[in-house]
Amino acid sequence: MRIAIAGLGNVGAATLRLLRAHADLLKVRGQEITVVAVSARTKEKDRPCDLTGLAWEDDPLALAARNDIDVVVELIGGAEGVAHDLVRASLTNGKHVVTANKALIAAHGVDLAKNAEEAGLNLSFEAAVCGGIPVLKTLREGMAANRLSSVRGILNGTCNYILTRMGDEGMDFATALAEAQQQGYAEADPTADIDGGDTANKLAILSALSFGLAPDLESIFVEGIRPITPSDLSDAAARGGRIKLLGIATHGEQGLVQRVQPVFVPLSEPLARVGGAFNGIEIEGDFVGTVFLQGQGAGGNATASSVVADLLAIAHNHHSFAFGVAAKSLA
Amino acid sequence: MRIAIAGLGNVGAATLRLLRAHADLLKVRGQEITVVAVSARTKEKDRPCDLTGLAWEDDPLALAARNDIDVVVELIGGAEGVAHDLVRASLTNGKHVVTANKALIAAHGVDLAKNAEEAGLNLSFEAAVCGGIPVLKTLREGMAANRLSSVRGILNGTCNYILTRMGDEGMDFATALAEAQQQGYAEADPTADIDGGDTANKLAILSALSFGLAPDLESIFVEGIRPITPSDLSDAAARGGRIKLLGIATHGEQGLVQRVQPVFVPLSEPLARVGGAFNGIEIEGDFVGTVFLQGQGAGGNATASSVVADLLAIAHNHHSFAFGVAAKSLA
Repeated sequence: MRIAIAGLGNVGAATLRLLRAHADLLKVRGQEITVVAVSARTKEKDRPCDLTGLAWEDDPLALAARNDIDVVVELIGGAEGVAHDLVRASLTNGKHVVTANKALIAAHGVDLAKNAEEAGLNLSFEAAVCGGIPVLKTLREGMAANRLSSVRGILNGTCNYILTRMGDEGMDFATALAEAQQQGYAEADPTADIDGGDTANKLAILSALSFGLAPDLESIFVEGIRPITPSDLSDAAARGGRIKLLGIATHGEQGLVQRVQPVFVPLSEPLARVGGAFNGIEIEGDFVGTVFLQGQGAGGNATASSVVADLLAIAHNHHSFAFGVAAKSLA
Repeated sequence: MRIAIAGLGNVGAATLRLLRAHADLLKVRGQEITVVAVSARTKEKDRPCDLTGLAWEDDPLALAARNDIDVVVELIGGAEGVAHDLVRASLTNGKHVVTANKALIAAHGVDLAKNAEEAGLNLSFEAAVCGGIPVLKTLREGMAANRLSSVRGILNGTCNYILTRMGDEGMDFATALAEAQQQGYAEADPTADIDGGDTANKLAILSALSFGLAPDLESIFVEGIRPITPSDLSDAAARGGRIKLLGIATHGEQGLVQRVQPVFVPLSEPLARVGGAFNGIEIEGDFVGTVFLQGQGAGGNATASSVVADLLAIAHNHHSFAFGVAAKSLA
């Protein structure tokens, strides 16, 4: 399997490291995976990965046009622009796509999945939701025999880190945010995280796959964590719980209800115990009951784990149907 | 997909109910699944499932010989005897096999997997470990890009129920066991559960798949929960933790080390919070870090969820390689 990687930030660099470190393992577990070409905004830059022997393309779209590539790994990010163009062009040119881009999938997942299905290609995006936790695989395959009724989770590690620090140390929001930025848990512009947009993107994908619908960002009620104060957190502790930013989607008689909101979670629930930059998700199925998953929801290495899992699935010709279920039931 | 079910206890009956209740859903998510024939020890018996229209075979082996069956679902149980014969015969006769039989897979998994692989058939056993929790899928697929170093878990719901009741209510072991039997959580003969044998079977399968080895039951140090007293549990609580029966497998410089043992688990760890008849598993990978899963580890409905997930995977021609990795790396 010959792949190209577009975007060499944390996740891209970690993916290169993983593919090199585990070359033998991956060959045994699926297929030899060879990185042929890469692309990123700046060529000359100190990166924690080795680019020796890899073709370089200044224009990521050139990756989609190469005829020595089977899979394009899109790690650029953003719902529109070059990431979108690259994924579309890759599918048009007969290449499987693996992406970690939640904004893109939440906004254009159905159309892209239709393109992929028509062409018999994979559009895989495990890494887009909850980093290293194989939650999409769990939903779509592990729990596929169930009618799912709800998905609830801590889907953004940055917010959870901030809320954890505020609760444990009595820090105010601004101080905890500054610390998170210093530790590399929050971006210089933290808006997408702290105002709930990132959680909403992930929730839209989760509910679409859970309930067989198209992702519906518009209908999500979104409230972020800016207004939370240390005293909110100490009050919560006194009441035997924690405040967590949750993405919650339910599907029942009232149809789909989705919201992103700081919520009081009693300590008796596993979600209350998910601390720091970790993510946790609770999925409810009619036969299996509640399944709870916890792990690293972000970070280069953890996210690379999901990117490469998707590559192995393609190597096994394990055709992941993306929004195929949605497409069929929406038909 | 035409299937036969051998064994109509809790799991068999629930599988029939699930297939009927979700017939439409399963058709959309994979393929129409038709139960053609069943077999169980006693034909005339009140069962919580409808056998109308299904062919009955007194001899389960007759299911393997039928030419109107694509998949045989083995829910009889036991490492030897008819379950083993049925699985072998089914593979020989070109039928995929789905089984919930941990004892069989722990004892004969490698040989059976080789038979399956040579014949290009699936031998699927998600339901054999932790009931409804898709832990084998998580290990083999979701975390496939990682070198795994350890697996630790509460793998037996009966023991966890007993220890939870002893801890919460100050009950002694015998009383808690009697209650578990009354509630249907423990068998009339509880030996396999409380002496750790069931946990050992599951651990052997987990470590084989995690580390690319053959299941090795013999080398597992096994200690059950009979000697645990209420004061052990209250001491643990005073020290800020709980006593849990864990299956623990690590793979490092000392090779494979496996043990089943009552262990003190501090409340800061998610495993300490897994109460009642639930199961929990913590898996450590080098890139992804720790992934934690929790859910119903037993019970008809939850286990049927995994049985049918395996059927859907076969419908998707998602060839699950069982101990293929083991076979290759052991070669």
